[in-house]
Amino acid sequence: MADFKSNDIQLQSRFSHPPVVYDNLKELSTHIMLKVPEHQVAGHEARIGQLGPLIDGSGRFYKPLQDDDRGSKEVAFYTSFSSNTRVPDHVRKFFPVFHGTQLLKAPDGSGLVPHLVLEDVVSSRSLPTVMDIKIGSRTWYPEASEDYIQRCFKKDRETSSLYLGFRISGLQIYGNEESGLWKPERKLVQKLNADDVRVVLKKFVSSNSPADLNLEPDCSFASSVYGGSTGILAQLLELKAWFEDQTMYHLNSCSVLMVYEKERVLKGGSSDAEVKLIDFPHVTEGKGIIDHNFLGGLCSLIKFISEILTSPDECTTKVCLQDSDKNNKEILTSPDDCTAKVCLPDFDKNNKEILTSPDECTTKVCLQDSDKNNNCTENGTNEGINISNT
Amino acid sequence: MADFKSNDIQLQSRFSHPPVVYDNLKELSTHIMLKVPEHQVAGHEARIGQLGPLIDGSGRFYKPLQDDDRGSKEVAFYTSFSSNTRVPDHVRKFFPVFHGTQLLKAPDGSGLVPHLVLEDVVSSRSLPTVMDIKIGSRTWYPEASEDYIQRCFKKDRETSSLYLGFRISGLQIYGNEESGLWKPERKLVQKLNADDVRVVLKKFVSSNSPADLNLEPDCSFASSVYGGSTGILAQLLELKAWFEDQTMYHLNSCSVLMVYEKERVLKGGSSDAEVKLIDFPHVTEGKGIIDHNFLGGLCSLIKFISEILTSPDECTTKVCLQDSDKNNKEILTSPDDCTAKVCLPDFDKNNKEILTSPDECTTKVCLQDSDKNNNCTENGTNEGINISNT
Repeated sequence: MADFKSNDIQLQSRFSHPPVVYDNLKELSTHIMLKVPEHQVAGHEARIGQLGPLIDGSGRFYKPLQDDDRGSKEVAFYTSFSSNTRVPDHVRKFFPVFHGTQLLKAPDGSGLVPHLVLEDVVSSRSLPTVMDIKIGSRTWYPEASEDYIQRCFKKDRETSSLYLGFRISGLQIYGNEESGLWKPERKLVQKLNADDVRVVLKKFVSSNSPADLNLEPDCSFASSVYGGSTGILAQLLELKAWFEDQTMYHLNSCSVLMVYEKERVLKGGSSDAEVKLIDFPHVTEGKGIIDHNFLGGLCSLIKFISEILTSPDECTTKVCLQDSDKNNKEILTSPDDCTAKVCLPDFDKNNKEILTSPDECTTKVCLQDSDKNNNCTENGTNEGINISNT
Repeated sequence: MADFKSNDIQLQSRFSHPPVVYDNLKELSTHIMLKVPEHQVAGHEARIGQLGPLIDGSGRFYKPLQDDDRGSKEVAFYTSFSSNTRVPDHVRKFFPVFHGTQLLKAPDGSGLVPHLVLEDVVSSRSLPTVMDIKIGSRTWYPEASEDYIQRCFKKDRETSSLYLGFRISGLQIYGNEESGLWKPERKLVQKLNADDVRVVLKKFVSSNSPADLNLEPDCSFASSVYGGSTGILAQLLELKAWFEDQTMYHLNSCSVLMVYEKERVLKGGSSDAEVKLIDFPHVTEGKGIIDHNFLGGLCSLIKFISEILTSPDECTTKVCLQDSDKNNKEILTSPDDCTAKVCLPDFDKNNKEILTSPDECTTKVCLQDSDKNNNCTENGTNEGINISNT
């Protein structure tokens, strides 16, 4: 990995932003309108006397580089990754676009501080619901200092990382106008047990108030956000396939960021939920070995999310769907776990959601008895009902 | 998990062997012809003054239970697993059949020692080639004692476990009459680096002498043993699918045992290579979480073996095969990594080996130019040649 300092000039000239120097941050703000991001859920935050990430509100995210080798490692990773032709395009989309580095003057007068300039993957959305999940049952790596290893080892054991294979670093959920924003304390969410992690992952895709700890999450958005061919689960499965094969990078202590806008989901149509990989100050070379630590944790997260899709709370039975059979005879398409047989139309002129893949069991379907005209009868409505035992 | 002692009588009566008590091991040997297994590659061994596994030469393997809770944990696991209806049949075949427990008198006069009675997965074969691979980048688990955790942690870092996700616990390879048996020192093989592990995995499926450290392994048996729809890789992939889903057991510190008989491979036909999971004294309950530690290590092993299949040393180019096209037009069936296009017959009256799956690149093929009569022309012979850049 290249040493940042020696490559600084070259990096600056390779990318679109020439070095920009301002006398003070206020002047910088006037020019580029940098501000503290509202929707940051994990990692260092900009405060008085403490450098933190900044955004320009136009799609760029400025991350100050730590002055130890973590900063240079992250730049070196992004530089290597950006120009690595062995990374397939369908994988590249999971990484923030790299816009080089930029020197900005520190507000405390300490001088110029190099910043990583990245695609802002969150702030482009209004009222984003965001979760940062650090992947891997160990966040340390063999090449690290013994002191670092021991600190991470202790933290992995104290948080959910060791036994779940991942930990939630932070999250925020936009409820409705009444409930507002739920942004629980980071130290709390990192130490959640398996059941509580499940609840948080359900709250992430629910419409009822997340802040109410006694309220069962309704998982209303589970299929829109987690499910479907472009949902979060599908994206995680694409990543999983790459991690089963790539031996170039070990993404130690990296996070999966999951983002979507509740507004878009409520309006219908695709949720546009995105998965991004972020935070690369501890990336090491793969040296021909897959990142089995990351992969194991990713598979564990995939299992948690899959379970939410296949058995949302209200769904007490798995149903088997049929193709459009005019006689409405019961046809089981994937009967392994079916506990009830129902006949459903495969096209429904009134309902938006049509179940086509029996693996996913959502909470709303239009059910009917065997009715030759394919009308929804008393067991179903056009609005959809929850599946229950028939 | 059940406490062994209290369940001892029940266990004995549940299985086919009543408690057998002998006055001395010699008498036992006379009755059941127990002997020390020849082909054990890892784990405790029976010696003067030290209990170890015994076999009866008729398919049973007797493993003395350690007197701490490891013994009871292993019995509890086998008992639970044997009667667990949630384990699919295609997964059950990867576990040794459990025949209950049996009390045998210790040769040192110390009394009756409970033994686990299992299917002997190795000794039924003549001259087996065997490898024991301990799976997982950590061999410890959260529920263990702090002392145990620290000892395992140290060993995982000193061996290949941490960075590869697995370590070779032991192996033996039958060469030919000249080279005989190669059974390297266990402590050596556990600490191999990635490149040396690759060499050992190649030696495992090679016909030339494994003991000669300067000799490049020829990978002659790679496709028969590792490849094909019933080969070792296919079996590992079946296991992988189960580990992505099952949340019942965490197989801490368990091994994958790979076994085949070189004789059978040389005679042609299927290699009958088997994968078995063994050694369950440290199994803990999954409690709804996948065994991401085991899964990560298993995927790493799968990657190593896949690479041997797709790029054996003599194979310098990956070729794409065709279905039987009478006009011998080039048809790419899986072109992702293909660097050369060739036309091959899918039925060849003279060659035994016909490549049908382009994922595997073996060393012998019959190549031809486009010859309408499907005769092998000057680029190929009936014996087969190595694929080289054309």
